[in-house]
Amino acid sequence: MDKIDIIKLLEAVKNNEIEIDTAAKEIEDLPFKDLGFAVIDNHRQIRTGYPEVIYCEGKTVEQVKNIVEFMLTKDSNILATRASEEMFKAVKEICDDANYNKLGRTITIRKNALEPTESYIAIVSAGTSDLPVVEEAAETAMILGNRVEKIVDVGVAGIHRLFARLEVIRGAKVVIVIAGMEGALASVIGGLVDKPVIAVPTSIGYGANFGGFAALLSMLNSCANGISVVNIDNGFGAAYNASMINQL
Amino acid sequence: MDKIDIIKLLEAVKNNEIEIDTAAKEIEDLPFKDLGFAVIDNHRQIRTGYPEVIYCEGKTVEQVKNIVEFMLTKDSNILATRASEEMFKAVKEICDDANYNKLGRTITIRKNALEPTESYIAIVSAGTSDLPVVEEAAETAMILGNRVEKIVDVGVAGIHRLFARLEVIRGAKVVIVIAGMEGALASVIGGLVDKPVIAVPTSIGYGANFGGFAALLSMLNSCANGISVVNIDNGFGAAYNASMINQL
Amino acid sequence: MDKIDIIKLLEAVKNNEIEIDTAAKEIEDLPFKDLGFAVIDNHRQIRTGYPEVIYCEGKTVEQVKNIVEFMLTKDSNILATRASEEMFKAVKEICDDANYNKLGRTITIRKNALEPTESYIAIVSAGTSDLPVVEEAAETAMILGNRVEKIVDVGVAGIHRLFARLEVIRGAKVVIVIAGMEGALASVIGGLVDKPVIAVPTSIGYGANFGGFAALLSMLNSCANGISVVNIDNGFGAAYNASMINQL
Amino acid sequence: MDKIDIIKLLEAVKNNEIEIDTAAKEIEDLPFKDLGFAVIDNHRQIRTGYPEVIYCEGKTVEQVKNIVEFMLTKDSNILATRASEEMFKAVKEICDDANYNKLGRTITIRKNALEPTESYIAIVSAGTSDLPVVEEAAETAMILGNRVEKIVDVGVAGIHRLFARLEVIRGAKVVIVIAGMEGALASVIGGLVDKPVIAVPTSIGYGANFGGFAALLSMLNSCANGISVVNIDNGFGAAYNASMINQL
Amino acid sequence: MDKIDIIKLLEAVKNNEIEIDTAAKEIEDLPFKDLGFAVIDNHRQIRTGYPEVIYCEGKTVEQVKNIVEFMLTKDSNILATRASEEMFKAVKEICDDANYNKLGRTITIRKNALEPTESYIAIVSAGTSDLPVVEEAAETAMILGNRVEKIVDVGVAGIHRLFARLEVIRGAKVVIVIAGMEGALASVIGGLVDKPVIAVPTSIGYGANFGGFAALLSMLNSCANGISVVNIDNGFGAAYNASMINQL
Amino acid sequence: MDKIDIIKLLEAVKNNEIEIDTAAKEIEDLPFKDLGFAVIDNHRQIRTGYPEVIYCEGKTVEQVKNIVEFMLTKDSNILATRASEEMFKAVKEICDDANYNKLGRTITIRKNALEPTESYIAIVSAGTSDLPVVEEAAETAMILGNRVEKIVDVGVAGIHRLFARLEVIRGAKVVIVIAGMEGALASVIGGLVDKPVIAVPTSIGYGANFGGFAALLSMLNSCANGISVVNIDNGFGAAYNASMINQL
Amino acid sequence: MDKIDIIKLLEAVKNNEIEIDTAAKEIEDLPFKDLGFAVIDNHRQIRTGYPEVIYCEGKTVEQVKNIVEFMLTKDSNILATRASEEMFKAVKEICDDANYNKLGRTITIRKNALEPTESYIAIVSAGTSDLPVVEEAAETAMILGNRVEKIVDVGVAGIHRLFARLEVIRGAKVVIVIAGMEGALASVIGGLVDKPVIAVPTSIGYGANFGGFAALLSMLNSCANGISVVNIDNGFGAAYNASMINQL
Amino acid sequence: MDKIDIIKLLEAVKNNEIEIDTAAKEIEDLPFKDLGFAVIDNHRQIRTGYPEVIYCEGKTVEQVKNIVEFMLTKDSNILATRASEEMFKAVKEICDDANYNKLGRTITIRKNALEPTESYIAIVSAGTSDLPVVEEAAETAMILGNRVEKIVDVGVAGIHRLFARLEVIRGAKVVIVIAGMEGALASVIGGLVDKPVIAVPTSIGYGANFGGFAALLSMLNSCANGISVVNIDNGFGAAYNASMINQL
Repeated sequence: MDKIDIIKLLEAVKNNEIEIDTAAKEIEDLPFKDLGFAVIDNHRQIRTGYPEVIYCEGKTVEQVKNIVEFMLTKDSNILATRASEEMFKAVKEICDDANYNKLGRTITIRKNALEPTESYIAIVSAGTSDLPVVEEAAETAMILGNRVEKIVDVGVAGIHRLFARLEVIRGAKVVIVIAGMEGALASVIGGLVDKPVIAVPTSIGYGANFGGFAALLSMLNSCANGISVVNIDNGFGAAYNASMINQL
Repeated sequence: MDKIDIIKLLEAVKNNEIEIDTAAKEIEDLPFKDLGFAVIDNHRQIRTGYPEVIYCEGKTVEQVKNIVEFMLTKDSNILATRASEEMFKAVKEICDDANYNKLGRTITIRKNALEPTESYIAIVSAGTSDLPVVEEAAETAMILGNRVEKIVDVGVAGIHRLFARLEVIRGAKVVIVIAGMEGALASVIGGLVDKPVIAVPTSIGYGANFGGFAALLSMLNSCANGISVVNIDNGFGAAYNASMINQL
Repeated sequence: MDKIDIIKLLEAVKNNEIEIDTAAKEIEDLPFKDLGFAVIDNHRQIRTGYPEVIYCEGKTVEQVKNIVEFMLTKDSNILATRASEEMFKAVKEICDDANYNKLGRTITIRKNALEPTESYIAIVSAGTSDLPVVEEAAETAMILGNRVEKIVDVGVAGIHRLFARLEVIRGAKVVIVIAGMEGALASVIGGLVDKPVIAVPTSIGYGANFGGFAALLSMLNSCANGISVVNIDNGFGAAYNASMINQL
Repeated sequence: MDKIDIIKLLEAVKNNEIEIDTAAKEIEDLPFKDLGFAVIDNHRQIRTGYPEVIYCEGKTVEQVKNIVEFMLTKDSNILATRASEEMFKAVKEICDDANYNKLGRTITIRKNALEPTESYIAIVSAGTSDLPVVEEAAETAMILGNRVEKIVDVGVAGIHRLFARLEVIRGAKVVIVIAGMEGALASVIGGLVDKPVIAVPTSIGYGANFGGFAALLSMLNSCANGISVVNIDNGFGAAYNASMINQL
Repeated sequence: MDKIDIIKLLEAVKNNEIEIDTAAKEIEDLPFKDLGFAVIDNHRQIRTGYPEVIYCEGKTVEQVKNIVEFMLTKDSNILATRASEEMFKAVKEICDDANYNKLGRTITIRKNALEPTESYIAIVSAGTSDLPVVEEAAETAMILGNRVEKIVDVGVAGIHRLFARLEVIRGAKVVIVIAGMEGALASVIGGLVDKPVIAVPTSIGYGANFGGFAALLSMLNSCANGISVVNIDNGFGAAYNASMINQL
Repeated sequence: MDKIDIIKLLEAVKNNEIEIDTAAKEIEDLPFKDLGFAVIDNHRQIRTGYPEVIYCEGKTVEQVKNIVEFMLTKDSNILATRASEEMFKAVKEICDDANYNKLGRTITIRKNALEPTESYIAIVSAGTSDLPVVEEAAETAMILGNRVEKIVDVGVAGIHRLFARLEVIRGAKVVIVIAGMEGALASVIGGLVDKPVIAVPTSIGYGANFGGFAALLSMLNSCANGISVVNIDNGFGAAYNASMINQL
Repeated sequence: MDKIDIIKLLEAVKNNEIEIDTAAKEIEDLPFKDLGFAVIDNHRQIRTGYPEVIYCEGKTVEQVKNIVEFMLTKDSNILATRASEEMFKAVKEICDDANYNKLGRTITIRKNALEPTESYIAIVSAGTSDLPVVEEAAETAMILGNRVEKIVDVGVAGIHRLFARLEVIRGAKVVIVIAGMEGALASVIGGLVDKPVIAVPTSIGYGANFGGFAALLSMLNSCANGISVVNIDNGFGAAYNASMINQL
Repeated sequence: MDKIDIIKLLEAVKNNEIEIDTAAKEIEDLPFKDLGFAVIDNHRQIRTGYPEVIYCEGKTVEQVKNIVEFMLTKDSNILATRASEEMFKAVKEICDDANYNKLGRTITIRKNALEPTESYIAIVSAGTSDLPVVEEAAETAMILGNRVEKIVDVGVAGIHRLFARLEVIRGAKVVIVIAGMEGALASVIGGLVDKPVIAVPTSIGYGANFGGFAALLSMLNSCANGISVVNIDNGFGAAYNASMINQL
């Protein structure tokens, strides 16, 4: 809401087209409109098909179902992350269009088909065990309207696998690197591409990875430039961030 | 080096325009050229004025001086981070154009004036004590050719200061948020802008910030979307990353 | 027990109104009475309806039931925290008035209806997943005789939700802020109200929150003034503390 | 700014008493006024003599001096914490009324004499080595207008020393407990008083206290009720919090 | 085995009372006998009824049963710690005299009744939830031949409970203090008795006790003298140590 | 691929024995062939019977089965670590020769019988509870073609057991030491042998071993020379490393 | 003070031998006398020559000097730990009998010559770098009246050195083991003696000992029985504890 | 000493060729001789020129000088690590042949020239700041008689530098990889060579490397096979280990 809206309102007041009380009420609401993010958020959502997102961890099946039910009354896409199969079944009952990615543990409901971007996000991962995070990231990126290329199982233990796929990685506008254990893949890719790299440590590995802490520290300390890091196993966060960059 | 170059080389062999031995040598070199990054890196540097970067921590004054001396023979800009005043004095002896940012502890030498980008990087910080990291980030961003807007001392303890500067923050193409203590500023800004946010935890604070670990964890766990994180006090890394995004 | 009581006792001895042996016994008991806390505790409990509290974690169903059984012989209210449904069933068998808050995992038994305080404790939380801690805090605060206002789901990722409820938060005599992930809500509220804020980190979040450690450190390092912190997920402790302040 | 102000403004518009443009400008400013904290903060400061606070850690002598210089133009008291002697000397040059507490490392400038509160804050500490934190807390509490009672060197290793001072501790409206090593003093006092206890862990101790982390964890895990905790060595934070409670 | 034994053996060789081969074999065994601990251990065990100890954690039911079966062929008492009920049932099948302490998770088999020591070990604990460790310690101390006095539920949150039992604690030759949460009980008792105190941190408590780490650090940093610490929840280790001291 | 191959190719071009396009394609592939490791890896595998290795943690039963199925088409041995019994059953269905080590959780399939080395790897462990790691290491070492000697249950608490087996340990070409709790066995053996020692910390122990972290730190800090360390519980990694050394 | 004293007092009141006011005063003081530790402490000190102890860390030279000055007015021995040479010089000025152990950083003043105990404390250490802690422990043990035997530089890297000194270690009544790095010496000695072992981790070692944390964890997790642990580098605490045991 | 020696001794006793007392003395000495390591150690040292090693950290200049002085009376080479320049000066006074490596902080004294091995140890490092550890490793490896090849400044940020040097790395018998920050170099090299890799994390890097902990964890969690790890900055330990392998 900008100055023009305010002036229009004031003119309406002056011209007796609107009750002072009504106008006062509307102005009292201004702070939130004026801060604007709600409005913008809503606009962007309608315009771009931005989804509503539900983080299911720590919520009950009932709560998730109710939130989806409410969201369905609005005309936006829906993404639920960390969703159990049980949650999906509950959602499916009220929305037949719901899809479940079992590995990625995401529920997606598409009400507005989005034309994917021409530029793409490369999602690169080190090993088979990282696939759940890859899937969460991919589902997120796609429902946000991005073209996605997945390059999986190219860990540095066999670096030739990585070089064979290097061209597609370097062609991306932004790269997500997902790796557990020591997370060295992020540094290696960071040294090979000149695009922003978003690194996602995963909780995969033997004892002293401490639930992904080893990979997290490794990625934060990367000697390669252009790497930033999100939380452990946070495929959603990486994809959200990558989507912002890809759609700049 | 692409396929066309190879075919040209083979035709030259076929036409006896080149010795088989010479051609063999050239092809043997292919892997590195073909991987290409060295070449590309060099090209990009010449084309864009990308600086050579020296990380001075753990190096002697002598080593820093020697590296700069060698770089001066090449025609690129130079950025030295974590440089002591003593290092600057040694560099100044061999290059009168060297500048020192005392707070940011950077040495910069500009051989190629760069036209700054139209879009800008917003560098936002919480408190006065975070200024050294702000300066390192700003110097880095500028020598990489970016327009920079600094918005300092807008920590969440007095959130109205932040709102007063919100417009300039939201106008940026990418935002760097620098904060110590609990680093909450990153989350608050992440919730207010729809641009990528790169968060830099700083080592500023009372006892239990554990050298910036508190702010680091805080930023990694941000409930706001679109935030990625770099290492503690790593203003350089944030700016390098932001520059990549700003110049996409 | 003050000097006057002692002098009265000695006069009774002198006047043969009391046996020396009896008096000796009474004096031998003095240290504990003189320290006084037991007495005071008891008095306060009777006077104010202060509950007996049972921390059920690590206790067997049998033990909890037995402790409640014993307490029922006294005339005080009872609060059991971290109670499983199985424990509640066992308690229900011996006390039909027992209530169970499933989310908050509390059992409450009210023998003395308390007039709630006029001033109130605001319990503010960031997300739906924090509700169990909210409920534990609310049940505790209410059985301690406080008026409570709950303001939930106002995390900083959408800061306008917080501003919409700011008035009710600022009206409280003391504020409890419950947040997981990066816990930034505590700092933001700390900067907006001028009442004591008690922050409760919760164990909600992705990998690197380390069971609430991230939020804990964040809150301890808050740049806002007037914030103190209790243990992770300790809704009870926060409410007990808030009740003390609210009833000063 | 409440609804009445808005209605008045609108009536002025309707009655042509004010230009639409001017009114629009005024309404556009509403968010900050409406949030109100700046105004309130200022009012409170003038009314109660609340000091401006400077946290000197990580600031240069020059910066501290400049901030003080600016503050002196306003009519409020000033408190600088973590200030070095060198900083004090610089401040002394521009303000002869400045006082320095060498142990507590605080600079205080009193422009408005405050009548201390009748109720008092008890500041209790375990050992001689905790005195710097005691002094920081005391200076803070006093310049915030509170009566303070210090009870030092009453660590639990010789618990009789504590009992000898128990009466004065129990007479306080709020108690600050400052202890390093294992920080057990907080729990013991928490079990003996029925007033809110704010615990401050200090970084004093042998190897495995890890810079105060041992005491911090100890206090957070206290089995006594009514204890909340601030950051390691944060005497200022504890006193600020205690002052809020003492002046409720 | 001392020099005299060797000389006797050599004289037997010289006098042809023993075969050279036999003697060579016996001497070849010397290193172990000479180190002596095996012999001494065996002797002590027979003389004092010292038990064989089995640490069941990480062993299968089958393995535990087999070890006990083998031990039963020797004439010593048996103690199994961290034993599940399933393990006990398996042992019971082959030894009807086996006893199970469900809370302490110990299996004990007494073949040699021991006259308990006159002096006693005091086992003091803070709360009901610490009882499993108390029981493990008590069973261990008793089968090692010690008189034991248990003083439970005397945590510092209600320090008067502790003072009421102080006499029996101070009468012990050595004191074991078992406490979770912040473990302050160890410091308080350490300040009240002049006997060696062995502190056992337990893993009981809210979030930030980190599985007993808080209590462990607290006890290691105790400001009281005369306290040493064993591993978290290690009731067995504390009792073994206490038994050594009690039987000096 | 060496220079000779390139020259041959060029000669074929010159002699029109090969199309320029085909040659160009082949040269374009050079980087990977030239890096050579894939080729070498394959050769070594066929030549030495090196197994394909599958790390099953975090994979589904289906995934493991599919990977094995694919590998069976190649003529190499197969080793699967961290395999559940369910996984083994699935593998058994498609390969009757598969063997399962229940304790070590390994599946092995031998297609090429290997003559074990003459020199051997000694695998030494401290306690019964370390056996799973011992078995994983032994299975790995054996399928890699090594002779193995196991020396178990020789922890330092009864150091005479270790001395009785010292000769066989000192006869090895390389020693693997597997120990939990404080991991002191590695240091003691490191001081007694003059062969490389690979230490494996295990996650066995009471509370403060923090999932093997205590043993890990202990081994990394060993005062004995010649010790290097692998990840917690990583029997596979130790054996792989030992095999490399044993077969030098 | 026991019941008999109280009865005597009451009889004196009854017989008018004492004023009621005086008696009331005396009874009012009872709590502290009745707790008794102060009295006992004083008595023990006079009787046994127990020293007053000053922990100098975090104290100023001035404070240390003043405390010693006050103590000199009493007739007890004095021990100051963690004392700098500067502190010693200040103390020397007011007490010519003061001695300084430079390595152990202790100041000792002996007013009452103590006959050392017949039984002795063995102080065993791993390396030369641990000597400062050895000296602190030895000075403490001696001024507490114990006979001490030092066995230094017998780390497990060369275990034969240890065996050569085993007899003197086994002859002790209690053993202190001081070791840095991985602290394995404690476990080895624990397995070889049947006396209580008090382990002191030291902060000596390469990077990942984390200021003694590695040795601390190692000792807490010792697989040998009979070991308890004190804080890192806390030679004083170990000796105090050992003295208690040695003088039982 | 084997059985044959014992039988010979007994026969000598039987034949009166030796006094019983003398024989008894000889047998009494058996344990240590039989354990044998002292003898073997001495022999190896004389035969191979193995150096005596002094770890100077935590030792005084005086102590280092004295130890060297004593060692000079024996005929072996000497290596002192972590030696300050001041220590070197003191050593130089008593031994003119002493050499100092300023970067590596080692003192070496060569009394027995060793023919270096034909096979070599490759010492690979990531950056200039890792050079001190490289030098310590190289000095150690060389005085232990090994041929050494250094390949420095080949960190993964510019992976082409590494490929250019790959041949010399792959030609080694054993590889030492030294890297700070995220230590990814170890994984990359581990995936490219089929020789044992010993990884040394260094303490170089920005904030969240926590003194080398990040690189340490990274290396322990390496997804590449054949990597084992030594302590942070422990160039000596890596080289000692590598020497053992190189000389197998």
